[in-house]
Amino acid sequence: MRALIPLFWPLACLLAGFAPLSSQGVIDATPPEAWRPLVPENTLYMDVGGKTVVMELAPELAPNTVRNIRTLVREGYFDGLSINRVQDNYVVQWGDPDAEDPAKQRKQNIPPTLAPEFGRPAAGVAFSPIPGPDGFGEPGFVNGFAATRTDGAVWATHCYAALGVGRGEAADSGNGSELYVVIGHAPRHLDRNVTVAGRVISGIETLSSLKRGTGAIGFYETAAERVPITRIRVGSDMPAAERLPIEIMRTDSASFRDYVDARAHRMRDGWFTRDAGFIDVCNIRVPTRALARP
Amino acid sequence: MRALIPLFWPLACLLAGFAPLSSQGVIDATPPEAWRPLVPENTLYMDVGGKTVVMELAPELAPNTVRNIRTLVREGYFDGLSINRVQDNYVVQWGDPDAEDPAKQRKQNIPPTLAPEFGRPAAGVAFSPIPGPDGFGEPGFVNGFAATRTDGAVWATHCYAALGVGRGEAADSGNGSELYVVIGHAPRHLDRNVTVAGRVISGIETLSSLKRGTGAIGFYETAAERVPITRIRVGSDMPAAERLPIEIMRTDSASFRDYVDARAHRMRDGWFTRDAGFIDVCNIRVPTRALARP
Repeated sequence: MRALIPLFWPLACLLAGFAPLSSQGVIDATPPEAWRPLVPENTLYMDVGGKTVVMELAPELAPNTVRNIRTLVREGYFDGLSINRVQDNYVVQWGDPDAEDPAKQRKQNIPPTLAPEFGRPAAGVAFSPIPGPDGFGEPGFVNGFAATRTDGAVWATHCYAALGVGRGEAADSGNGSELYVVIGHAPRHLDRNVTVAGRVISGIETLSSLKRGTGAIGFYETAAERVPITRIRVGSDMPAAERLPIEIMRTDSASFRDYVDARAHRMRDGWFTRDAGFIDVCNIRVPTRALARP
Repeated sequence: MRALIPLFWPLACLLAGFAPLSSQGVIDATPPEAWRPLVPENTLYMDVGGKTVVMELAPELAPNTVRNIRTLVREGYFDGLSINRVQDNYVVQWGDPDAEDPAKQRKQNIPPTLAPEFGRPAAGVAFSPIPGPDGFGEPGFVNGFAATRTDGAVWATHCYAALGVGRGEAADSGNGSELYVVIGHAPRHLDRNVTVAGRVISGIETLSSLKRGTGAIGFYETAAERVPITRIRVGSDMPAAERLPIEIMRTDSASFRDYVDARAHRMRDGWFTRDAGFIDVCNIRVPTRALARP
């Protein structure tokens, strides 16, 4: 046996170099160029219930809606408003509880309607597909956002933590002043029926653990139950030191492709006894890492 | 035009008779024989945090695990134990926080190991398929439980509200004394790696809105954070008047098939501007109705 040892170790090392990596192994091996910054102009910080919820906006997929949301945030529209609806396995929604009452509604300087951005032409959008099947189209990612592509269109998908734009009966009645976040199994039937404008990247547990509303579709029945929003800010309006110090794995990188594969093969992580060999687009949390400071 | 009216109305009525129904329309039209009772022997009532969480067990899919759980419940094993782990977008888990400490662990009269019931032979199991595609196999239902079938096996799927059996490293180390409920996007990578033994049918919001644990994988870091379980009872051991008075739509009925179709075509419900034409197995909440009293 002793004669084999000098051969065995180089062979083992060689094989390990080719062995597919675990999820954590992929993250650890991701090169610097496969991480991107969280762009301050595309980041919202919502102070609510003593905590901060951080959201990344998706101008690639909903440019006009994102512009409206930024404008509303900068005019202080949301400051002092509240979370008014928490429906289990569905959404947390905030805005002006008096929005339907012209006498009491909060003034805003943007038009109440906006052409919907339920999807946009796929041409020109950098879409990184992941393996299917998927009942809604071709699954993938656009710059960190879970997305679906089909019929020549692409849209941000209603996964857990997606940030959506409430609307009324009319398709153009959502201008960004009424927002919701998904806190349950992805309600992808909402895709292409509502505009998805971003996603929560930090602090979603503050929203998902809120008391459920007991009114119809989860609205709080009394004003006292509503959860006050202290303020929302755009990251670029904040001191750099207050911004969330993370980078996000590029979803168009080889590392991300490896990460998706690792999530479909969990036996690489240990404990698992069988690989599904598949991962749903909404079960992939895009990895982040602490910002490398100079 | 007047001459057309007598023809028009019968024609409209005839067409309406063939028009596909909305979700609520299907429920309203479901005949009595397409509802089944909630079987008291297969129902658990967990009193926790001043509320009651009701769970239905799935002996069709995990008979030995269900038997173990009933035995543990009847010997009062869970009474006075606690919810010890709440991981966002994943699971709420309860059991004995001292289970790992032989000196402090609670005594139980069942063996600590059980042959896993991660899946069972599909032959002989009444499986009602629903339209795919599905990345994990053929999606469907078994007596009210979302399930997946492939490779000659069938198993209850880790959808939102699924009741699963915690285990350690060894596949046979889950005997039913450590249980969890899914409170996020379906973690179907756990399918066939853990036994699913039932589902929450009422009161899941009590679990899903709990404060998230800040320890590793969502464990509470202090004993004070744990949520005490007052007791768990089997429905058949309770006075009939205390049982949840509902019936469940039979998932092998034509009504349920129509319901699934309606959930894939939400424009029938109004508000929607586009049908997905597809519904994920984990987005189908099996309808219930108030029990028809004699």
